[in-house]
Amino acid sequence: MQNVKVGIIMGSQSDWPTMKEAAEILDALSVAYEKRIVSAHRTPDRLWDYGKGAVDRGLQVIIAGAGGAAHLPGMMASKTRVPVIGVPVQTRALSGVDSLYSILQMPRGYPVATMAIGAAGAANAGLMAAGILALGDPELAQRLDTWRADLSASIPEEPRDE
Amino acid sequence: MQNVKVGIIMGSQSDWPTMKEAAEILDALSVAYEKRIVSAHRTPDRLWDYGKGAVDRGLQVIIAGAGGAAHLPGMMASKTRVPVIGVPVQTRALSGVDSLYSILQMPRGYPVATMAIGAAGAANAGLMAAGILALGDPELAQRLDTWRADLSASIPEEPRDE
Amino acid sequence: MQNVKVGIIMGSQSDWPTMKEAAEILDALSVAYEKRIVSAHRTPDRLWDYGKGAVDRGLQVIIAGAGGAAHLPGMMASKTRVPVIGVPVQTRALSGVDSLYSILQMPRGYPVATMAIGAAGAANAGLMAAGILALGDPELAQRLDTWRADLSASIPEEPRDE
Amino acid sequence: MQNVKVGIIMGSQSDWPTMKEAAEILDALSVAYEKRIVSAHRTPDRLWDYGKGAVDRGLQVIIAGAGGAAHLPGMMASKTRVPVIGVPVQTRALSGVDSLYSILQMPRGYPVATMAIGAAGAANAGLMAAGILALGDPELAQRLDTWRADLSASIPEEPRDE
Amino acid sequence: MQNVKVGIIMGSQSDWPTMKEAAEILDALSVAYEKRIVSAHRTPDRLWDYGKGAVDRGLQVIIAGAGGAAHLPGMMASKTRVPVIGVPVQTRALSGVDSLYSILQMPRGYPVATMAIGAAGAANAGLMAAGILALGDPELAQRLDTWRADLSASIPEEPRDE
Amino acid sequence: MQNVKVGIIMGSQSDWPTMKEAAEILDALSVAYEKRIVSAHRTPDRLWDYGKGAVDRGLQVIIAGAGGAAHLPGMMASKTRVPVIGVPVQTRALSGVDSLYSILQMPRGYPVATMAIGAAGAANAGLMAAGILALGDPELAQRLDTWRADLSASIPEEPRDE
Amino acid sequence: MQNVKVGIIMGSQSDWPTMKEAAEILDALSVAYEKRIVSAHRTPDRLWDYGKGAVDRGLQVIIAGAGGAAHLPGMMASKTRVPVIGVPVQTRALSGVDSLYSILQMPRGYPVATMAIGAAGAANAGLMAAGILALGDPELAQRLDTWRADLSASIPEEPRDE
Amino acid sequence: MQNVKVGIIMGSQSDWPTMKEAAEILDALSVAYEKRIVSAHRTPDRLWDYGKGAVDRGLQVIIAGAGGAAHLPGMMASKTRVPVIGVPVQTRALSGVDSLYSILQMPRGYPVATMAIGAAGAANAGLMAAGILALGDPELAQRLDTWRADLSASIPEEPRDE
Repeated sequence: MQNVKVGIIMGSQSDWPTMKEAAEILDALSVAYEKRIVSAHRTPDRLWDYGKGAVDRGLQVIIAGAGGAAHLPGMMASKTRVPVIGVPVQTRALSGVDSLYSILQMPRGYPVATMAIGAAGAANAGLMAAGILALGDPELAQRLDTWRADLSASIPEEPRDE
Repeated sequence: MQNVKVGIIMGSQSDWPTMKEAAEILDALSVAYEKRIVSAHRTPDRLWDYGKGAVDRGLQVIIAGAGGAAHLPGMMASKTRVPVIGVPVQTRALSGVDSLYSILQMPRGYPVATMAIGAAGAANAGLMAAGILALGDPELAQRLDTWRADLSASIPEEPRDE
Repeated sequence: MQNVKVGIIMGSQSDWPTMKEAAEILDALSVAYEKRIVSAHRTPDRLWDYGKGAVDRGLQVIIAGAGGAAHLPGMMASKTRVPVIGVPVQTRALSGVDSLYSILQMPRGYPVATMAIGAAGAANAGLMAAGILALGDPELAQRLDTWRADLSASIPEEPRDE
Repeated sequence: MQNVKVGIIMGSQSDWPTMKEAAEILDALSVAYEKRIVSAHRTPDRLWDYGKGAVDRGLQVIIAGAGGAAHLPGMMASKTRVPVIGVPVQTRALSGVDSLYSILQMPRGYPVATMAIGAAGAANAGLMAAGILALGDPELAQRLDTWRADLSASIPEEPRDE
Repeated sequence: MQNVKVGIIMGSQSDWPTMKEAAEILDALSVAYEKRIVSAHRTPDRLWDYGKGAVDRGLQVIIAGAGGAAHLPGMMASKTRVPVIGVPVQTRALSGVDSLYSILQMPRGYPVATMAIGAAGAANAGLMAAGILALGDPELAQRLDTWRADLSASIPEEPRDE
Repeated sequence: MQNVKVGIIMGSQSDWPTMKEAAEILDALSVAYEKRIVSAHRTPDRLWDYGKGAVDRGLQVIIAGAGGAAHLPGMMASKTRVPVIGVPVQTRALSGVDSLYSILQMPRGYPVATMAIGAAGAANAGLMAAGILALGDPELAQRLDTWRADLSASIPEEPRDE
Repeated sequence: MQNVKVGIIMGSQSDWPTMKEAAEILDALSVAYEKRIVSAHRTPDRLWDYGKGAVDRGLQVIIAGAGGAAHLPGMMASKTRVPVIGVPVQTRALSGVDSLYSILQMPRGYPVATMAIGAAGAANAGLMAAGILALGDPELAQRLDTWRADLSASIPEEPRDE
Repeated sequence: MQNVKVGIIMGSQSDWPTMKEAAEILDALSVAYEKRIVSAHRTPDRLWDYGKGAVDRGLQVIIAGAGGAAHLPGMMASKTRVPVIGVPVQTRALSGVDSLYSILQMPRGYPVATMAIGAAGAANAGLMAAGILALGDPELAQRLDTWRADLSASIPEEPRDE
């Protein structure tokens, strides 16, 4: 069995439609991952345990998505030196700007690699995770290069009417 | 010695010039308090312990101030049912809107009683704490009524040139 | 008959779909409440009377929801020292940021415990009210602890596809 | 003695440096006015009395300036049908956007004629008041026309280096 | 025939669904008005003529609604001393904040009495116009007082489930 | 004498410190220009005349800077088909976002080529004007190419401590 | 065959429903154009080639639309002195304010003529392009004058109910 | 000589006071880096070359800071799969929100790990780079753990008056 190096965590079930975009990218790149609901507020001890065990369990990247007062990515970054990628989930009243500021504006000492708001950001979290892992995995680097080349090659010359 | 019922906590030393406004209000109303630096990110275990011990130590209100990705108030609300009052500290680039959204936009289950951005908000946190304690302390209720009456009485009829 | 200790007030009938979330939480926690429409602008004298009578009627918390130029929570805080919890109702053009600023940015002297914009904020207003009452009501404290524990226990380990 | 037809009111002494711009315009146009501190939160009864007496005292325009959760203009509009002109005073953290939204976003029924944020808005409040009074005062209309013509005539053809 | 004292103007046909709220209020208060499309950009000469003739035609209030780069209210205020009430029409990308800033932030000399964004603001423009006219029309003042009293009387004591 | 093809206009003398950046660029590129104060609100007839005469006077580009409710660029675009470049001048309360929205959000039919807020935007207005004129002036095209090459060549390889 | 002087480029197929408004204006004015998908991120070399060849191919205006981190217009402006008109495409979470800031806030040296967010902005990009070309094409100038006159003539006097 | 694995690049000399915070963190952690000015607009070919050579030169992380229409981080992410960390530099008119949106809102395919606005973000970029390198460098992991532990240990229990 391939060792799991990426953890995708999210604050609630309602974040999954966004966060599964990260999972799909990792699937496409054959990167193994686990997915967990870890609520900073509802299951803080789960967050604690996940963070404290991350290095020992061999996790190399944690992708954390949350919305509103989105404390999960930053609190996870406080508990482990494993790189944390944050995905601001779009919200109803504030369109995810609340999620964004809560994730982005971390104080000196605890970076969170923040992605764009919503689904594109989640997909990019998967790509960022792959890019980090590729530094030590030449085959993944090759797959990522191919994925990128395919994306570029897919762009037609002219727009078409629909 | 009067029992300490209010904890004023803040994410860093740099929040104190704001948060001491809360302390001054509590001093004026003869409400005992303790003040602590509890950084959600730098001292998460301190946050955990403070939250878990709050009820047993007899704390009745926690005033928590923080800036930027301000996770302290919300994480504290996750760890204890003692009412948490949040003070968004003004920040450089985003004027405290980042602090505000990080404190205010808590998910269902974990309210934070959010005050105005900056020093006026910190002073009001002290008054809100006093108002809560006054529900079970008729003498404090009387002092608070007097404080409010004095404030009203201090307003002159006409503005004066300076 | 259980004594009513919480008043839920709102600026108009159109706020009720939001504010009933507060009522439902109080129902779940067996906290008695009354609900009233008190418009700061259309029924200012009703606001006056409600505020002036709050202490004598034994109210211990007032939950006030309003949208747009949302003056109800702050004006109520001006008329009584009973703690006021404010709920910014989401609005059409400005998504409730107008409601939020009108409720939050109170001057020194008159705090309003502001909750998140919209329905989650209303639910949390109910929980904040319960948390305040629980300070003097050990049985309610127990029910609130149970409610919180149940919420935490309800979170599954993994997200599920829908 | 000339009858006072314009009331300039403001929430606190700290609003006067802004609001005196309205007074200076009225001075320049020989419109009599009174100036008062009327705090919506600290002196709500003063607000009540001022509003209820406005028609009988012969006030024809009320200019109300306030900052933050600026409830004074809207609450005054609730208490009297005398036209209310609102001036959002600039604030520290939110630059007066909080003042603006609190004044502008009034519900159907209670308009506040909102001016620009800060000193230019206060000056324009004076001019708007004069424009309203001029509808029934041909001499004032003449003075206002002259003031406007003078302003236009004062604009040089080319910018000059300083 | 009653003399027309209020002009309702708007930048385009698409503003009418918003602006007719002003017309309906004036109908309810028996205030005669005219309604015109006057586009600042597409029909600038119409704007010029309307503004220059306003005083001579006996107009006492101009209600001007526009969206986006909403120049109509402010340009009209430049051309006549007749009080101009501005209504920011809600827009697609910027929700009417663009309209608001274009109308509100007038320089010293040319006030526009800005109302709330959208339909409530248009209705309030009608009420503000009526309030201004009522200063010289006791019968209208009486009708406006009745309208306001009816609005207040229409508010039920309690919210009802729907 | 070289024929003037560029008009730099601005709403007030206070815009000149910003707008002179456009002039300096045109000086550097040996493009003749005139500079005028044309206030949309204070001198609307001057605006009219300037716009109506622009084609006949041989103007090929108009650079228009203004702040706040910045109507000058858009109104000029309404009066002439000569391309108008708009420069949003930074403002005190709203940092020039008010200027930006007033200039940018023009309705279909009347484009304004909007530049960045403030001095960099004014300089770029000069460059955009030069780029337009260069389409019909090979020597200017050459000078512009050189200016651009010089700018690129001026960038050092490494940052230096100061 | 008429020589192509305008290039309409866009970051992706999804921008075409917005950008075709520019094409329709150019069609209406009988201005030949080409349309291309040029993604700054997915096809950077295509961007490079397009920019470097623009002058030699005789392009006189480039209209570039993009959304989100919209780098296409600014990067194109970096590669060619041909005037670049930028169209911020509306986005889901941030309504196109992200597109706007990415296009507008260019540093000194590389102007992008930014249009309004969305479809109106795209149409205006077509008109701005025509206005620029009209400087050297009297027949096009005539057609543009006619288009503008027709637009003005199409505005009815009064709004109609729908 | 230690092999350089981190490139710190920035759009201009004026970004260095911000970006040197990243350098100082890397110095403290004994991580070798190079620093370069690479302007997306002024030196696009330098950007191209840097991006295309990144993998072959052995770079493992690129830290890119820029302000305003900040295209450098995203364009670099387009040119190389080496992970790019973006630092939004604070700007004058828009406080760095323009920089933030230009860096953050990347489309699917090209992630940029965005940090907080300004100096704290730059310091965190250094820490994020170290965290990524530490995945393959146990000694650096140890130094990073120590740095983090020292930071936590430096927090006093109580705030002190100054």
